[in-house]
Amino acid sequence: MATLGAHKKHKVTIVGSGNWGSTIAKVVGENTAANPDLFEKEVQMWVYEEQVEGKKLTELINEKHENVKYLPGIELPHHVVANPSIEDAVKGSTILIFNLPHQFIKGLCKQIQGVILPFARGISCIKGVDVRESEIRLFSEVIGEQLGIYCGALSGANIANEVAQEKWCETTIAYDPPPVDSQAPTPARTPPNRSPAASQLDLTKLDQHKDVSGKPSKVKLTPLASEYAAIDHVTMKILFHRPYFHVRVVSDVAGVSLSGALKNIVALAAGWVDGLGWGDNAKAAIMRVGLLEMVEFGKRFFGKTIQTKTFTEESAGVADLITTCSGGRNHRCAKMSVVEGKSISEIEDRELNGQKLQGVSTAEEVYTFLRSQGLEQDFPLFTAVYKILKGEEKYENIPQLIEKDTVSTDADEK
Amino acid sequence: MATLGAHKKHKVTIVGSGNWGSTIAKVVGENTAANPDLFEKEVQMWVYEEQVEGKKLTELINEKHENVKYLPGIELPHHVVANPSIEDAVKGSTILIFNLPHQFIKGLCKQIQGVILPFARGISCIKGVDVRESEIRLFSEVIGEQLGIYCGALSGANIANEVAQEKWCETTIAYDPPPVDSQAPTPARTPPNRSPAASQLDLTKLDQHKDVSGKPSKVKLTPLASEYAAIDHVTMKILFHRPYFHVRVVSDVAGVSLSGALKNIVALAAGWVDGLGWGDNAKAAIMRVGLLEMVEFGKRFFGKTIQTKTFTEESAGVADLITTCSGGRNHRCAKMSVVEGKSISEIEDRELNGQKLQGVSTAEEVYTFLRSQGLEQDFPLFTAVYKILKGEEKYENIPQLIEKDTVSTDADEK
Repeated sequence: MATLGAHKKHKVTIVGSGNWGSTIAKVVGENTAANPDLFEKEVQMWVYEEQVEGKKLTELINEKHENVKYLPGIELPHHVVANPSIEDAVKGSTILIFNLPHQFIKGLCKQIQGVILPFARGISCIKGVDVRESEIRLFSEVIGEQLGIYCGALSGANIANEVAQEKWCETTIAYDPPPVDSQAPTPARTPPNRSPAASQLDLTKLDQHKDVSGKPSKVKLTPLASEYAAIDHVTMKILFHRPYFHVRVVSDVAGVSLSGALKNIVALAAGWVDGLGWGDNAKAAIMRVGLLEMVEFGKRFFGKTIQTKTFTEESAGVADLITTCSGGRNHRCAKMSVVEGKSISEIEDRELNGQKLQGVSTAEEVYTFLRSQGLEQDFPLFTAVYKILKGEEKYENIPQLIEKDTVSTDADEK
Repeated sequence: MATLGAHKKHKVTIVGSGNWGSTIAKVVGENTAANPDLFEKEVQMWVYEEQVEGKKLTELINEKHENVKYLPGIELPHHVVANPSIEDAVKGSTILIFNLPHQFIKGLCKQIQGVILPFARGISCIKGVDVRESEIRLFSEVIGEQLGIYCGALSGANIANEVAQEKWCETTIAYDPPPVDSQAPTPARTPPNRSPAASQLDLTKLDQHKDVSGKPSKVKLTPLASEYAAIDHVTMKILFHRPYFHVRVVSDVAGVSLSGALKNIVALAAGWVDGLGWGDNAKAAIMRVGLLEMVEFGKRFFGKTIQTKTFTEESAGVADLITTCSGGRNHRCAKMSVVEGKSISEIEDRELNGQKLQGVSTAEEVYTFLRSQGLEQDFPLFTAVYKILKGEEKYENIPQLIEKDTVSTDADEK
């Protein structure tokens, strides 16, 4: 049985190095340096290799300690090491932070199956969910299933450049790993001034490294889960919390992930209402109605673990919704489309340099899913957004489209 | 016993005729006309008489059907009747809507004690609460106690001029009158397409009009409560809901009233952060933290009836907070004070034409109250706002001031 003595340090890898990935590498690198008892200082950052100014991007990053292409002007900790080999970057890491465009996830996970530690833990910083006609999956689920590990999520009101400039904000980490093996010592709650050595053990993957006698096998050369301190809520907070980046850790992975996707639908409606000049009252009303449809969507389709307060009280919920409906590009383009009398796709073409608005595709996916369930009428704002995008409804009609039955109030509870 | 047959129509009086009072008179007047079975069409509006353009304001309103002084450019329903006599305006009314500056409430209530119907019901549109050193009272409570009637509250993301122009928005009515007399017929829930005649009776005040035999007295000349349809959630929704003014009726009067007061403290902090150029992330974080302190304040001091969702899900809560932190004057003046490097009171003097910011006085009152309870440290944002106003702290330190213990997350629940 593992002892409660000194533990191996956790090794951290960032999978992805775009604007947000590089920002998270900065945050995490600062914390591995500040917590040497708990983490190896060096942070590996997998970089999709490309040529920049006639040089390899990884070499530029490692020379200049700056991602000159995706996060220019921000100095990265010198112990954040850019690595073009994903297999090499993840090797021996106990904590894998996924921060890359969602279309690359599945291919990348295939590459590292069997390479990662079997008891590694993941955090997905990828906003949104994978919606198919009649199936919805969180990206954390996709990663977890493909790699056979547990994966949580990080999301919040976090415009990457503002975080990189150390402008204060908050974020939410959702993390709810399976319970500790019942044969393990009773886990004591870690005290506020915990030392890593005193924290509870994570033995969930221990079986894979035991021999038939139940004792840890001596022939295994890979590390054992029991050699490490548990990766729990406290560990996650220490790894991500900075004076300028306040972290709250919750357990509702689905709520955090869904908020990040569904808010973009609401932002389109907020943009239209802004474009109509209806004022702050109306925009706040759209956000309120949208927030409740987000909650309802979560409860209907992820009911087991969803908590209303993830949406209404956390940074990943209400705060990210507020930010997205203030300065985000879904809101901005929708507003332009009303003011200029142009379609959303005309505005997308002009403003987004070939990219597409996430709110548009999410609205379509969510509507398709809702229709497959026959539940469009229970989500009148989401449905209205889809129909307006398709030209089947007018944005001026949003109030009527979302108006509830005249006498349906919480009076029904009385 | 009263029959379930035809009822007397409810008579409605608006007590107050400022910008918001006149707007509510318009809303309510439209609904009394649209629901002739339930309401008398004529709506009395008490007006504090003053001379405008050499004429009496009441005469101007009744001639022009416009409150030329406080809501110019908006046509009022012709059956909204301005009345300079408060006693005359409230006589025989079953529904009294209070919409006037809070400093006049107590004096006014004295004037109409004994004049109003004893079973009348009130709705207070007065935002905020009456905070003393170690006592907090809702204005609806002040009204209710002084007049011996039940009084609810209306609050929401409602900038008066926008509502008057019929720009769509939402509001929250909080209404939780005492239960119907247990001797009364079992109240059936009113169906969606209710007719007033079929709705439940409100017999709570009936005793006052019964003779010793228990039968309604024939010598009484004042109307009996039993002659009217109940004033319930449905009645309130019909009286206030318009296509451009969507109403939700809830039961949490304290939550609705507190939101309207406490949001102004949060708006000051949001304004400072905006003034510092910290971006949308930071502002959203302030609003999120503020929202949770609002909830906490409610739960601590009005615990019996407070519901978290009033703050996090209703127009009076999160939506009004968003509006107030976007375009409200507390936010605007606080932002100016940072950008220009001036004190709040300098900005007040210059911008507000002799008026004061409500957030400043509420922050002081709330801090004084919290200190009297020894609970400042449980409300770090409210406390920070007070200390910054007093020059005891700097707004740049808000993140540290509100930062929670590094390992205090909802991990504690796990």
